[in-house]
Amino acid sequence: MDMADRGLLLILSGPAGVGKGTVCKALRERMPDLVYSVSATTRQPRPGEVEGVNYFFKSKEEFRRMIEQDELLEWAEYVGNYYGTPRAFVDAMLASGRDVILEIEVQGALQVKEKFPQGTFLFLAPPDLEVLENRIIGRGTESEETIRKRMEVARAEIELMDHYDYVVVNDEIDWACDRIQAIITAEHLKRERQVHKYRKWLKEVR
Amino acid sequence: MDMADRGLLLILSGPAGVGKGTVCKALRERMPDLVYSVSATTRQPRPGEVEGVNYFFKSKEEFRRMIEQDELLEWAEYVGNYYGTPRAFVDAMLASGRDVILEIEVQGALQVKEKFPQGTFLFLAPPDLEVLENRIIGRGTESEETIRKRMEVARAEIELMDHYDYVVVNDEIDWACDRIQAIITAEHLKRERQVHKYRKWLKEVR
Repeated sequence: MDMADRGLLLILSGPAGVGKGTVCKALRERMPDLVYSVSATTRQPRPGEVEGVNYFFKSKEEFRRMIEQDELLEWAEYVGNYYGTPRAFVDAMLASGRDVILEIEVQGALQVKEKFPQGTFLFLAPPDLEVLENRIIGRGTESEETIRKRMEVARAEIELMDHYDYVVVNDEIDWACDRIQAIITAEHLKRERQVHKYRKWLKEVR
Repeated sequence: MDMADRGLLLILSGPAGVGKGTVCKALRERMPDLVYSVSATTRQPRPGEVEGVNYFFKSKEEFRRMIEQDELLEWAEYVGNYYGTPRAFVDAMLASGRDVILEIEVQGALQVKEKFPQGTFLFLAPPDLEVLENRIIGRGTESEETIRKRMEVARAEIELMDHYDYVVVNDEIDWACDRIQAIITAEHLKRERQVHKYRKWLKEVR
C-alpha cells in the first residue's frame, strides 16, 4: 500500500482535567470512521467490558513479554496494573487507510512521540490564560508555597507543548472538535501525502 | 507584535486552467477578512480600476526601482508590461494580524517561495488523474509528438508540487474552498504560532 493511502495517527493529549476524554468522545460521535486506539491492560475486565473493544485483556506475563518485544507504543504501571497501547492494532488500522485516535496523558504522549514521530500530536489546552491563572492563584488565600508549586506545574505543562504539532484550546467542545476536524483534513492534504498518487500515475502512463 | 499574532500568507497556485481565479474569488466571498494581495503593474488603468484595489499603478521607472530595491516578492514581464507583488503591502497586512491570499501562476509562486519561505503554499490540482490523462491523450487522434509534449508539461507540473505545502484538488469549487479553509484553520493552530502567548503569560505571572 502506498504511503499516501495510510491513515493518520492522532495523539490527543494535554494536562489533567482539560477535557481530553469529553472531546475525544464528541469527536468519535461526529466521525464514526475514526478508529479509537484500544489499550491493553492487566486489570480484570469489568461487567460489560468486551475484549478488543474496551481493552485487550492480558496477563502480567503477556504484558511483560509485550514490553520486552517492543510491541507497545507506550505503557505505564498504575495501582498495581499495567496499561499500554499495542502497536500492532494501530499499525493494522493505519495500513488499511483508517485514521486512528489515541487519547492519552502527557507522559504517555511523549513515549508515543519516540516510537511514532510521524503521528500528529495535538495538545488540548485550557480555555484561556485567565482560567489557568485563577487555577493557580486561587481565591488569594493560598500560601505562597502552594502558588509556587502550581506555577511549576503550569510551566512544565507549557514546556511540554514543544513536543506537539498543534495546540487546540478547549473553550467549547464543539469548537474544539471543529478545530480538530480541520487539522485532520489539512494533514491529509499535505503534499507528502498527496504527491505519491501523481508520481505513481506518471510511471503508469509513461 | 508577537509572531503568534501575525497573519498567514497563503499562496494559491497551480497549473494554467486549473481554476485558481474561480477558487480564489469564491474563497474571498466566504472569508471577507481575507486580504487579497494587490499587484503592481506598469500597464495603463482600465476604466473603473482603482489604485490600491485592483492594482498599484507604476511607471516603468518606478517598477524597475522596486525590482532593484528588492521590494517585490515576485515579478514578471508580459507583453511589454511589468507585473509584480509588492512586499510592503503584504508585510503591513500580515503585521496587523490579517491573513493574505496571493493567487499566482507556478513560476511566480517559486519566486515567492525564495523570498518568503514561511508562507503557506497551496497547489491547486486538476480534479483527477483521468481528466489529466484525457487532456494528454486527447481523443486518440493526436500525434505521438503532441502526446509526448503534453506528458512533459504534466510531469513538470507534478515535479513542481515538491515546492508546496499542500495539494488541494479542485473537483468542486465549494469542496476546494472547504479544504482551503481547513488548511487556514490548521495553520493557525500550529504549535509554533500558539506557544508564544503561553510563554508570554508565564513571564508576566512569574
